[in-house]
Amino acid sequence: MYRSHNCGQLRISDIGVETTLSGWVQVSRDFGGLTFVDLRDRYGITQIVFNMDDNQDLCEQARKLGREFVIKVSGQVRERSNKNPNRPTGEIEIEASSLDILNASKVPPFTIEDESDGGDDIRMEYRYLDLRRTPLQQNIRFRSKLALETRKYMDSQDFIEVETPFLIKSTPEGARDFVVPSRMNEGQFYALPQSPQTFKQILMVGGFDKYFQIVKCFRDEDLRADRQPEFTQIDCEMSFVTRDEVLKTFEGLTRHLFQELKGIELGDFPWMSYDDAMAMYGSDKPDLRFGMEFKYLNDALQGHGFGVFDSAETVVGVLAQGIADDYSNKQMKELTSWVQRPQIGAKGLVYVKYQGDGTIKSTVGKFYSDEVLLKVLQDHGAKPGDVLFILCGEEEKTRKQLNELRLEMGRRLGLMKEGDFKPLWVIDFPLLEWDEDSERFHAMHHPFTAPKVEDVDRMLTGDHETMKSLRADAYDLVINGSEIGGGSIRIHDRELQSKNFDLLGFTKEEAQAQFGFLLNAFEYGAPPHGGIAFGFDRLAAVMNGQSSIRDFIAFPKNNQGRDMMIDAPSPIDQTQLDELSIALNVQAE
Amino acid sequence: MYRSHNCGQLRISDIGVETTLSGWVQVSRDFGGLTFVDLRDRYGITQIVFNMDDNQDLCEQARKLGREFVIKVSGQVRERSNKNPNRPTGEIEIEASSLDILNASKVPPFTIEDESDGGDDIRMEYRYLDLRRTPLQQNIRFRSKLALETRKYMDSQDFIEVETPFLIKSTPEGARDFVVPSRMNEGQFYALPQSPQTFKQILMVGGFDKYFQIVKCFRDEDLRADRQPEFTQIDCEMSFVTRDEVLKTFEGLTRHLFQELKGIELGDFPWMSYDDAMAMYGSDKPDLRFGMEFKYLNDALQGHGFGVFDSAETVVGVLAQGIADDYSNKQMKELTSWVQRPQIGAKGLVYVKYQGDGTIKSTVGKFYSDEVLLKVLQDHGAKPGDVLFILCGEEEKTRKQLNELRLEMGRRLGLMKEGDFKPLWVIDFPLLEWDEDSERFHAMHHPFTAPKVEDVDRMLTGDHETMKSLRADAYDLVINGSEIGGGSIRIHDRELQSKNFDLLGFTKEEAQAQFGFLLNAFEYGAPPHGGIAFGFDRLAAVMNGQSSIRDFIAFPKNNQGRDMMIDAPSPIDQTQLDELSIALNVQAE
Repeated sequence: MYRSHNCGQLRISDIGVETTLSGWVQVSRDFGGLTFVDLRDRYGITQIVFNMDDNQDLCEQARKLGREFVIKVSGQVRERSNKNPNRPTGEIEIEASSLDILNASKVPPFTIEDESDGGDDIRMEYRYLDLRRTPLQQNIRFRSKLALETRKYMDSQDFIEVETPFLIKSTPEGARDFVVPSRMNEGQFYALPQSPQTFKQILMVGGFDKYFQIVKCFRDEDLRADRQPEFTQIDCEMSFVTRDEVLKTFEGLTRHLFQELKGIELGDFPWMSYDDAMAMYGSDKPDLRFGMEFKYLNDALQGHGFGVFDSAETVVGVLAQGIADDYSNKQMKELTSWVQRPQIGAKGLVYVKYQGDGTIKSTVGKFYSDEVLLKVLQDHGAKPGDVLFILCGEEEKTRKQLNELRLEMGRRLGLMKEGDFKPLWVIDFPLLEWDEDSERFHAMHHPFTAPKVEDVDRMLTGDHETMKSLRADAYDLVINGSEIGGGSIRIHDRELQSKNFDLLGFTKEEAQAQFGFLLNAFEYGAPPHGGIAFGFDRLAAVMNGQSSIRDFIAFPKNNQGRDMMIDAPSPIDQTQLDELSIALNVQAE
Repeated sequence: MYRSHNCGQLRISDIGVETTLSGWVQVSRDFGGLTFVDLRDRYGITQIVFNMDDNQDLCEQARKLGREFVIKVSGQVRERSNKNPNRPTGEIEIEASSLDILNASKVPPFTIEDESDGGDDIRMEYRYLDLRRTPLQQNIRFRSKLALETRKYMDSQDFIEVETPFLIKSTPEGARDFVVPSRMNEGQFYALPQSPQTFKQILMVGGFDKYFQIVKCFRDEDLRADRQPEFTQIDCEMSFVTRDEVLKTFEGLTRHLFQELKGIELGDFPWMSYDDAMAMYGSDKPDLRFGMEFKYLNDALQGHGFGVFDSAETVVGVLAQGIADDYSNKQMKELTSWVQRPQIGAKGLVYVKYQGDGTIKSTVGKFYSDEVLLKVLQDHGAKPGDVLFILCGEEEKTRKQLNELRLEMGRRLGLMKEGDFKPLWVIDFPLLEWDEDSERFHAMHHPFTAPKVEDVDRMLTGDHETMKSLRADAYDLVINGSEIGGGSIRIHDRELQSKNFDLLGFTKEEAQAQFGFLLNAFEYGAPPHGGIAFGFDRLAAVMNGQSSIRDFIAFPKNNQGRDMMIDAPSPIDQTQLDELSIALNVQAE
């Protein structure tokens, strides 16, 4: 037996108990007559004392213990003279009567402490040491609990978890597939699922009614920061539902998770159309922890002889509160440079300061009288102390730039408060996006998304321009500016699905080859259905106010898609290639 | 809104309620003035009545409904005159006042009933229809509940569910890997995990202490009946544990699952050594629902002048109770042919009938006096009416043959009772198996399995012959003759792990290239640890007394590894091949 208790368990009420603990040496301190060892396991840290007077051999053995040695200690629980109120076990210590070294440890390449001194690469290579750190332990435990609470809630709502297959069929639509050569079917490949989309729809056709799954998905994309080639989804689908029932169900799930895991009662989940979100925030995932809605200023500011505004499609601003007297010219210049960076791409930044004393100061003061500017400010709810920042140009571009500025001001002014969570449903997305380069439509959500009921006729009979205006019965859940998930009511009618494939540029043959099974299934009594998928890694990070998903994944890959610890991917044997009937086709460098 | 209630919900207490139901037409019966429709969804079946007198249009619409049409019906709940006591909703029916056809259906290629008239291939191709059948719905729901209860129990025991990666590294040991070409790392491949073995051990080194996961695993093997290329495991690992603690934990899980899902209180889980299991049953997974232990007869039957027995290494039998007077000569002959089939491979079958009247009848009567045979029978507990079946030959082979005969007699005599569950821990497996063909050792469990503590010294210092006698700290859970799972205490010492790799024929370089990360991890304070994995598909089938796992998997593959519904695997585009830097190397036929 390695332990009678764990290292987070013993308390003052256990004094006198004979105990055996096993764990890692967090630190060992030698005070001559006494040696103190902090023994750590997943559950906590307990102090062990070795006394030179009582047992010299044991104490000398203890002096040789290095950090991260694995030991087993037996002894009696006693009260500490020097208590540590910051530790649940801080009132007691173990007077050691025996010690076994279960395993030694080399000196770790970085310290196993909350704030590690290891860089990203070394932490990835020695992930087993990084995972010992408390913040990572907490993240991975949070993730485990998040999954369990998700499952309990879904079960309470009568959902069935069904495992869909991982070895499926490659479809060149959307992102790139990871593929798997089939040994038994020469020259053929499986693909790893980008999502279980078609299978969950098939489950609805199969009568499962309410399906969910917490499931790994795969996308072979060039990895940007915080993208992983394999990621986890909470994937759901329901039959005989309208959009509102789907939103209600997953609002319920989200509330439950925040309540159970964070003790937070979420406020209302407002709904906002895609068009409104773009108009008010220049983004389909606005952070609602703060206001700063867009102010459209064409009417107010065009026609006053300021050519830059007069010639712009859109003149639009945001109001930053209470900074007019504090923000220096230097800061304003720096902010102008910030919006002019290539990543943002604004030509310039106009501001109107409504100073504390009621006076106006503006970069466009020579084009507008103070009266005009004051009226603009007051019409848009500004108070003395506020600054109106204005961008102008082509509408879509300018909105995106102003979205970046709004978020940056939110960060600078501390408006994105930790512990504050603002959920939002964004609804009524466009069904199709016209891509100028390839001259074809793309599905904004995916090819299985239904148009809104009132747009079905226009979709079946309309012309090319009409298609651009179709709205999808699609929705996204956004929390604090992060997209947590999205979904839609699906097409369940073969004719409408075929029409959609047509619009997306599939030939009949391509549609049949790739999705024939789904089209066929629609002919055997497919029920109306819809669903949603939440990004599980993202949800875990957002609930903890963190922006990176990597520390919520036990074994993440780096930006080149490599697992640094196991050193994968790697070459395989020629025998394996031969068995799979493939050959390498690597260009000499 | 598509429904106010589901099709399994309404009762006699709901009479008068206005309701809306949606579902599939199970059957429609036209009785002239009245048309009855059985409306089905996941929750049950409700009878709908359309009345020609009340609403002619509606009734005529209803007459046109085919099987599997998807409809929405509104109406009032009323008491049935002709009640159906076999159906929870059988006391009521809905008097329809409106009908919407949500989707039509072609005539299904087989009937959606408990006993389908579809063959395997057609059922696989139209899996969405097969999944509508009640037995499959029940299986998939059972599986969902089994997973949830597993998770709840593991959580109650402080286990953390951690997701391990799917894109890992190929290791040519063991079964064949499925591999995934990496686009970003030219000429390199990921492998899909055959199990999360090394990752769960890394998690122990990372201090997670108690890990579990319900996880998909992949093996590219030639598929025998009831093998799937992707399958699901309950995968577990614990730190600071001995074998007995692991067995106790997973006995607890198994008890919990039988209790919660089947309402069955399992009896004791006996432990049996591998050697005993092989000696008593000729199998490492004996079915303990019935006895028929092996009787070794060398001492009793050799030296009596019967050359076949005298020259055999082993003479061994089983006792079949109460059939001596019933089993005809013809049946005995048929049984002899059965054991002589190439799949079994016995040379012949000897029997000794202890007839009801106390007399003896035997195929070897001319070599043995009745007194000798009677003594053998009585010494081995036979009673009048029993038959002793005897095989002889080389020990290992003969045991296997007799195991097959024992199981066959168990089946023929109805000794494998439905609803009877007999769990068994088989322990103390050999560590290494000598393979005559390749002249090397194979790991009986896997290369990370620890020898029993008392065998460590012999392993580190012994000669070649010694290695054959090493016992592993490994264990299997067997229920009713099916292997539910297996595991072991692992090596956590770098030196011992290196020694094991040596024995298994790895060069130092191979061991480092494939498992360097684990060997390195062992140098940074690896705790003693061990674990187990249960076959989840198998567990679900065995708990339901079924032998095939296929109907407990929503989307299984056929014996050629094909998904018949989506028609995968399939060829991929040249562009995809080029991006992955691979070429097909398919032989012209």
